[in-house]
Amino acid sequence: MADSKRVSQITRMEDDFSKWYTDVILKTEMVDYAPVKGFMVIRPYAYAMWELIQAAFDKEFKATGHQNMYFPLLIPESYLAKEKEHVEGFSPEVAWVTIGGGEELSERLAIRPTSETIICSMYAKWLNSYRDLPFLYNQWANVVRWEKTTRPFLRTTEFLWQEGHTLHETFDEAQEETLKILEIYRRVCEEVLAIPVIVGQKSEKEKFAGAHATYSIEALMHDGQALQSGTSHNLSDHFAKAFGMKFLNRENQEQYAFSTSWGVSTRLMGGIIMVHGDNSGLKAPPKIAPIQAVILPISLHREGVRQAAFGLYDMLKDDFRVKVDDSEQNTTGWKFNEYEMKGVPIRIEIGPREIENGQFAYVRRDTGEKALAPISAIKEIIASTLDDMQNRMLESAREDMAKKTSAAYSMDAFKEALAANPGFIKAKWCESRECEDNIKEMTGATLRNMPFENEDIGSETCVCCGREAKRTAYFARAY
Amino acid sequence: MADSKRVSQITRMEDDFSKWYTDVILKTEMVDYAPVKGFMVIRPYAYAMWELIQAAFDKEFKATGHQNMYFPLLIPESYLAKEKEHVEGFSPEVAWVTIGGGEELSERLAIRPTSETIICSMYAKWLNSYRDLPFLYNQWANVVRWEKTTRPFLRTTEFLWQEGHTLHETFDEAQEETLKILEIYRRVCEEVLAIPVIVGQKSEKEKFAGAHATYSIEALMHDGQALQSGTSHNLSDHFAKAFGMKFLNRENQEQYAFSTSWGVSTRLMGGIIMVHGDNSGLKAPPKIAPIQAVILPISLHREGVRQAAFGLYDMLKDDFRVKVDDSEQNTTGWKFNEYEMKGVPIRIEIGPREIENGQFAYVRRDTGEKALAPISAIKEIIASTLDDMQNRMLESAREDMAKKTSAAYSMDAFKEALAANPGFIKAKWCESRECEDNIKEMTGATLRNMPFENEDIGSETCVCCGREAKRTAYFARAY
Repeated sequence: MADSKRVSQITRMEDDFSKWYTDVILKTEMVDYAPVKGFMVIRPYAYAMWELIQAAFDKEFKATGHQNMYFPLLIPESYLAKEKEHVEGFSPEVAWVTIGGGEELSERLAIRPTSETIICSMYAKWLNSYRDLPFLYNQWANVVRWEKTTRPFLRTTEFLWQEGHTLHETFDEAQEETLKILEIYRRVCEEVLAIPVIVGQKSEKEKFAGAHATYSIEALMHDGQALQSGTSHNLSDHFAKAFGMKFLNRENQEQYAFSTSWGVSTRLMGGIIMVHGDNSGLKAPPKIAPIQAVILPISLHREGVRQAAFGLYDMLKDDFRVKVDDSEQNTTGWKFNEYEMKGVPIRIEIGPREIENGQFAYVRRDTGEKALAPISAIKEIIASTLDDMQNRMLESAREDMAKKTSAAYSMDAFKEALAANPGFIKAKWCESRECEDNIKEMTGATLRNMPFENEDIGSETCVCCGREAKRTAYFARAY
Repeated sequence: MADSKRVSQITRMEDDFSKWYTDVILKTEMVDYAPVKGFMVIRPYAYAMWELIQAAFDKEFKATGHQNMYFPLLIPESYLAKEKEHVEGFSPEVAWVTIGGGEELSERLAIRPTSETIICSMYAKWLNSYRDLPFLYNQWANVVRWEKTTRPFLRTTEFLWQEGHTLHETFDEAQEETLKILEIYRRVCEEVLAIPVIVGQKSEKEKFAGAHATYSIEALMHDGQALQSGTSHNLSDHFAKAFGMKFLNRENQEQYAFSTSWGVSTRLMGGIIMVHGDNSGLKAPPKIAPIQAVILPISLHREGVRQAAFGLYDMLKDDFRVKVDDSEQNTTGWKFNEYEMKGVPIRIEIGPREIENGQFAYVRRDTGEKALAPISAIKEIIASTLDDMQNRMLESAREDMAKKTSAAYSMDAFKEALAANPGFIKAKWCESRECEDNIKEMTGATLRNMPFENEDIGSETCVCCGREAKRTAYFARAY
């Protein structure tokens, strides 16, 4: 069948997961490679999904009192250098502008790899009194980090993200903000993207350059590799001291402010593909599906069919993102494959037989189940099917993550578990950098994060050195 | 009065228009200067307005079948060089990245000054058949042009904009698209931003580098200078030839496609300030006002006042962008000045007397008129007042533009009119570059555009050389 060729051209994920991923993103026309290595073009179907993701996060940020701003793309080298750990962390990845308007610049300018340094320098200027606090600001922007190995969405030289930057009177308020955002990240990932995540704190080694503490949400892909999906940093007064963010406090004393920063990026698009996708292609969670239902007229040229299809469209268009594909250049079989591959949650079919019976047929992308229903009930049925699919996709991803999570009490068990069932390994850890490094060297797994609740996993000793250990940590190979 | 000091610190526009502008944008906290010369920080109040402007345009683009995408920030020098006129126009303004990841790059990369070159190179790859056409895509992005003289919003090294890039089968379709977008620009400017514009074609001298023809909308500021507020370019097959955008047409012949590009930017923010502002500060058109009505409790500590203010808020919040300012650190007088300066369309006052009478007081920012009305009618009154203000602001700006527009039949009259009544000078022009250059040299005015309808202005000869002239053109000094 020529019609099924396009989908059959997607490499099976069991055969080569990496090639499956590339096939899916290219064949669904989500991205294309740009002329400069490591850069991507985000095509309309993917960008529409990104807009819906942005809207979901933006709504939560605004509901918690944050406002958007925009700071410059270019940062003077001297600003980047002010926070020592920060510059060490980022300077190897910087793209430098050295010529502007035909002239060599007296100071080279970094394309922002992240904006703490420029934002803090402005905050220092705006901050006078405790009455000015908190500063609760966010920006949606592009950033550039010169990466050696890149993959569309997962790690690209340029990516799109939001970066929140807040200022507070006290350390505790900064900590509260850091965790409030982390909880928003968890909730939007789970409730909107249908991606379950492990929530916890990063190790000293893995924390953000310049932070007091970094927290993350970590998702698990179909291949058992983790994807860091959002981070929230308590920067304490580190950047305040580097940039002079001082204010007169309630006791009329000058003091340093406490800051946070936090971000999610187009990386989440990669997570959606690798958590929900299957060998037929993408599966878009209904809440962020650019097309929630596609209406396909069957026997397009039979009288009344096209009109009936647009009749359904008119019934649905105010409440759902819906599309009729009545194009004549492609067969119905081609369309079936196309929208399945693009992960459209519901396919609606309407042909002479359905019209005669006052019915429409619909097929769910997640289960493949086909059903008939009366046209008069179409709004309720589409709404409840999308709801159910959203919930089932999260549930199914949760089950998959649970299946791919093992506990280990020794390095032999750790290695065995990772080989037999790639995914998260939860283990006790003594909090030494040495053990963290050894584990990575022996297994390729990194410490993803340490959940807040110190889960009892049936062991009290470090999986690596056998010494007493208090923290439970999640390890995985990661993107 | 200490309370009125902040507003009185705004330079009067009659005294120094340029200083008035700077005072307004800084004191309303719309922008601040960034550490790198020519860059600006867009602060929350201005960014919220920009988000509303974006939404207004984006809705129109989507309603006419355009989709958003995202293309890379960095463009290889060789791509920029492919269209000869284009590279000559833009290369003097380019910021070049020469170092990435610690290494000198083999080819330097331009930060996009505009994205035709990178987008066309991708379009060439995606385009095969006439069935693929049209391509109707847009991107919201930042761009960088190294400018010598900069002013926040009006001309900044980095600015935010949308750039539409479309591909068509025929020249006529490209032309139709070019003018369709121009009409969207006009409509959104007039109906949403309340800024009247002159619509027309640019001269050969002023057209976009690489275009077949450029069309623009031109607004007139309070000081009589024009502001080019949006441009739409018919690129014919110029970029298609440079980038190989070819397809098999309906006759199964290979042919070049026809392209357009078009953009509006954060520059519009400057237009809003300079068209609507007055000596008290900004005047925000209701449709894009971040706060449409501010509720100020009067005698805040009297029983029931704060609750009454929040009661009004609850009645309005679902339909309007509304805010209660019940802060105690500032006086009511300070607040009056603050929100007047920020151009909030309606100030609502509620105190013990109003509460007793079941009323609220409201003051319009445009007329300064104060009125009382029953609380039960608040939603209708706010809605109709905002509507009326939106219309009156456009009307008033139209009248102002008409007053500042003169016709001239000779260069003496031209100079006299421009001195006596700075603004648009409409005049006949012979279409020679020589006259265009002479007019600029003699008066500082440039040819803004040539309206489609060849208006009878009572003369048939070129204002400069006296030869026969067919086109009517609008001239002005411009930002």
